[in-house]
Amino acid sequence: MRHLMSPLDFSVEELDQLLDLAADIEKHPSKYAHACDGRKIATLFYEPSTRTRLSFETAMLNLGGSVIGFASASSSSAAKGESVSDTIRMISCYADICAMRHPKEGAPMVAAMKSSIPVINAGDGGHQHPTQTLTDLHTIRSLKGRLGNLTIGLCGDLKFGRTVHSLINALVRYENVKFVFISPDELRIPSYIREDVLNNNHIEYKEVERLEDAMPELDLLYMTRVQKERFFNEEDYVRLKDFYILDKAKMALAREDMLVLHPLPRVNEISVEVDDDPRAAYFKQVQYGVYARMALILTLLDIHVEEGE
Amino acid sequence: MRHLMSPLDFSVEELDQLLDLAADIEKHPSKYAHACDGRKIATLFYEPSTRTRLSFETAMLNLGGSVIGFASASSSSAAKGESVSDTIRMISCYADICAMRHPKEGAPMVAAMKSSIPVINAGDGGHQHPTQTLTDLHTIRSLKGRLGNLTIGLCGDLKFGRTVHSLINALVRYENVKFVFISPDELRIPSYIREDVLNNNHIEYKEVERLEDAMPELDLLYMTRVQKERFFNEEDYVRLKDFYILDKAKMALAREDMLVLHPLPRVNEISVEVDDDPRAAYFKQVQYGVYARMALILTLLDIHVEEGE
Amino acid sequence: MRHLMSPLDFSVEELDQLLDLAADIEKHPSKYAHACDGRKIATLFYEPSTRTRLSFETAMLNLGGSVIGFASASSSSAAKGESVSDTIRMISCYADICAMRHPKEGAPMVAAMKSSIPVINAGDGGHQHPTQTLTDLHTIRSLKGRLGNLTIGLCGDLKFGRTVHSLINALVRYENVKFVFISPDELRIPSYIREDVLNNNHIEYKEVERLEDAMPELDLLYMTRVQKERFFNEEDYVRLKDFYILDKAKMALAREDMLVLHPLPRVNEISVEVDDDPRAAYFKQVQYGVYARMALILTLLDIHVEEGE
Repeated sequence: MRHLMSPLDFSVEELDQLLDLAADIEKHPSKYAHACDGRKIATLFYEPSTRTRLSFETAMLNLGGSVIGFASASSSSAAKGESVSDTIRMISCYADICAMRHPKEGAPMVAAMKSSIPVINAGDGGHQHPTQTLTDLHTIRSLKGRLGNLTIGLCGDLKFGRTVHSLINALVRYENVKFVFISPDELRIPSYIREDVLNNNHIEYKEVERLEDAMPELDLLYMTRVQKERFFNEEDYVRLKDFYILDKAKMALAREDMLVLHPLPRVNEISVEVDDDPRAAYFKQVQYGVYARMALILTLLDIHVEEGE
Repeated sequence: MRHLMSPLDFSVEELDQLLDLAADIEKHPSKYAHACDGRKIATLFYEPSTRTRLSFETAMLNLGGSVIGFASASSSSAAKGESVSDTIRMISCYADICAMRHPKEGAPMVAAMKSSIPVINAGDGGHQHPTQTLTDLHTIRSLKGRLGNLTIGLCGDLKFGRTVHSLINALVRYENVKFVFISPDELRIPSYIREDVLNNNHIEYKEVERLEDAMPELDLLYMTRVQKERFFNEEDYVRLKDFYILDKAKMALAREDMLVLHPLPRVNEISVEVDDDPRAAYFKQVQYGVYARMALILTLLDIHVEEGE
Repeated sequence: MRHLMSPLDFSVEELDQLLDLAADIEKHPSKYAHACDGRKIATLFYEPSTRTRLSFETAMLNLGGSVIGFASASSSSAAKGESVSDTIRMISCYADICAMRHPKEGAPMVAAMKSSIPVINAGDGGHQHPTQTLTDLHTIRSLKGRLGNLTIGLCGDLKFGRTVHSLINALVRYENVKFVFISPDELRIPSYIREDVLNNNHIEYKEVERLEDAMPELDLLYMTRVQKERFFNEEDYVRLKDFYILDKAKMALAREDMLVLHPLPRVNEISVEVDDDPRAAYFKQVQYGVYARMALILTLLDIHVEEGE
């Protein structure tokens, strides 16, 4: 039995297979509409996340299965002091697969060790959120046709953003990927990523402070939010914040085929005037997330649907 | 694509068609049991309302579809600052139709503008609650056989009750409808309804302060709650409150075929001793609400089930 | 129409039938996979209980049915002052059967009186929790092959534990059942159970203060939690608490075929080192709870599935 804890749990080959499956699901949804008939997913969300929870539930329903679970810790037995290990043994009697979101790093891993059903880490604190990475990869692959040969801008809070770190880790496995990191000095990419992940793998990258400076060369811009409380002082925040807001003017500097991605929810780091730009892909990303999770569920449950129409 | 924002969004003809469909669903439920196979409704309840939420979910399940959503804002991504516009674009990737309850007037309209799936306003603050009106109309039509030629009493808080205002707006479109408004002076029907809706349409109405005075002439009595905090002073409240409590004694003054409706939940404005009176229709109303919502879902999704057994 | 309010609602013969059905479901799950197609259970949980709620939902989904409901009072219309009687009349329009958990003793009984669908008491305050008892009986019967001829140890808080009281009441109906009560003096089994249930039925029992003293003679050990706040003073708690913690050392004193049960969630009253002991049956118990609830739903809905493969 297999779990998904980290975006690197799958080899490049396995990932290729999973994303091929996601693409086939997109093309032939009716072929998969009953693949999980009679199966159940448990969505165990110890902290709320509507987007992620509903994406898993949608994925399972699209496959013909059904859903049990809870949307926040307050309505769970965690309040009665039950351990995650005991909860997953209970859930193993109820469901066929489980997606767990937990504020504590490592909780899904602890669960997986005692589980008799596949456990998917749906976000554990600031640690990992592998299905966001699968979503990002599937979106890029579907819209750009490849995961290598790309110059990728990552903008915003690059220090604390787990989504960004996971995506870098996943993308360095492909050929000829270059990064442009766009962030205030306080929120630069951590040195362990620069050293261990980028330098050791001989990955080309540069760091800039202003989004404008990066725009012209990007194949892809991955936006994230910059929270005010991350800045050292108010002055810096006021001076810098507009550098990290994507608007029409900045989009005018970008290539015709540059994609804009965002893990959502966005607050104001992408101006709504960008939404109608054909290069804005962050809402399509939500749809790709459903296909990626459908493929993941089928893969972990080892369910194979016959090829062909 | 069509949304439902206000009870007047449907013309009288369209409404007739929708209520005919609701009646057919009641008669032949099995004919519709798979009409929405593979479809999903999203119930987005930014404030809790068990009755309305479960009515929508029951309606979709009765049609063979399934449900995703949230029951309160605390477990939604609204807490992370996401706009309703962004949320609906996400939900458009997950579900086929959406019912939204929101404390803010106009929020479902804002959602509808960015949605790629039909949005149903399931109550927006003190503004509109169109599926309650559909429920009321379907109940009246089913039990009285008509929507015109009726003398309708409306009792309770007529000043702030959105349900009452919507029902008046919907009923004035039918022939020979007369109203009797029963309320304390503080909670009289607003002047814009008296002027714009009633006088301009030459609708007959009168206003009385005591339920007893109205009972004998009514074909239908629509009860609503009178909240203590709406009164100007304690003295008035004590003097008046019993006038607006429906009990067996007051029912004795009514016609044999007068119907009692109530949007529920009731607190004490209808005495439980009235519940077994055959004229009490407020629990049947809940059932009619399910049929009305089933018809609405089919209509907005443009799904047609073949006629005949 | 029939409800389930107390574990004694079923006669010994009816219970035998129900547990036979549960056993058949375990053996031939696919035979029952569509027994409740098109039916709905409403899970009305006025206080949270993930284990019990998800067990009912799993049971209904395993039978092909679907689920509506709420997981806590805060998202229910109870907050608006609606009575349980009114709520169940609403729910009767939505669902085919209902499981209700309520902090107030007797609330499910009040609901049952006004309901037009079967109501299952899923726990009412400190009063009854009959499906836990069904679960316990089904677990014992499945793993020991019988409900009579057993020496049963009950350990922990025997004064306030409703689970324990219900189980005693249910087991005294079988032949040659003996009890060993293991608890601190403060938390002894109540005198009305000693007098009315045990002595009047000529049931053999003894009371001991230490788990070690009871272990060697037991066929079955039913563990429950001892809460610190139940003790009269801190000194007693410190002196006694380890007597009621089951660990490997105490298990070494028990018979080879002694079963350990626990209603869960456990906190620390069973050491995790016991989990892998083949005699530990508390996680299997969760699974048996699903079968018992499936059998209960079918029984109350009077649905019969043909015998044979």
